[in-house]
Amino acid sequence: MPFQNHTDRVISQLKRTGAFLTVKNGERVNSMTIGWGLLGIHWRMPIFVVSVRRSRYTYQLIDTAEDFTVSVPRDHAWDEALAFCGSRSGANVDKYEKCGMVMLPAREVQTPILEGGGFTYECRVVYKTPLDLMELAPGIREQFSYSAGDIHTLYFGKILASYEA
Amino acid sequence: MPFQNHTDRVISQLKRTGAFLTVKNGERVNSMTIGWGLLGIHWRMPIFVVSVRRSRYTYQLIDTAEDFTVSVPRDHAWDEALAFCGSRSGANVDKYEKCGMVMLPAREVQTPILEGGGFTYECRVVYKTPLDLMELAPGIREQFSYSAGDIHTLYFGKILASYEA
Repeated sequence: MPFQNHTDRVISQLKRTGAFLTVKNGERVNSMTIGWGLLGIHWRMPIFVVSVRRSRYTYQLIDTAEDFTVSVPRDHAWDEALAFCGSRSGANVDKYEKCGMVMLPAREVQTPILEGGGFTYECRVVYKTPLDLMELAPGIREQFSYSAGDIHTLYFGKILASYEA
Repeated sequence: MPFQNHTDRVISQLKRTGAFLTVKNGERVNSMTIGWGLLGIHWRMPIFVVSVRRSRYTYQLIDTAEDFTVSVPRDHAWDEALAFCGSRSGANVDKYEKCGMVMLPAREVQTPILEGGGFTYECRVVYKTPLDLMELAPGIREQFSYSAGDIHTLYFGKILASYEA
């Protein structure tokens, strides 16, 4: 599907119960729940931006990974798994077994995708930028307690494939 | 309208002939054509990201501005104006007179909006980040000749209002 199709539903689902961000780095794979995401065009390319805090297990993977995938459920079927993957760290628990998530090989990237995971985006990291607190509105800086150092880094993924899984 | 409505059409129009990015700073106002943009959620807020190169007249305005607006035409009516505003600098010509663009006061921000401009977003700048070439994929760095110094800065606008104008 053209990557921009369903963007309104994707954003609505991010707001509702979230989506799965999956990253594979070497032998390690993890899926975390994200409620933030930006979609559109940059460098004349289709881009999906995801953000990960330094304290997250996913940060250890994505910061040196080449790619990631995003799976955006179309309905409530994954709500429980999203809640679980958003509250438990993949460093300590096998989320896939626990949540009955079957991962399949992607078409264009190393990171796998979630079987039946809905709107699916395969992305290659083309840019990353850690938050610069000096340029952030003070209210946001405080709201997310960034001054303690646990900042978000934004990863810009070029969308290499998008489809419904 | 909920800001995520029509996002698929907004992205398609960005790809087709673009949208108007308008910025007011003090007494100066300018509209430039943009073909890039990112929409979604960040910091639990609705966000529209726009990018401006340092060489642009708009950069002189937006880099110290509090807000901006984006007008995304719904049809071909503005194609000629988009082509004009994308090729001429507001430093040298009155684009508004030339293109028959009538600017109206916005609801929530200082920057005006384009009358009949389509999907309209009023945004307050909450974050900005100049491109860090060290973290950018080498192919992109070359494609856009960034090494000469004329880099893009990304402006993250919190969407305060979105509607059809």
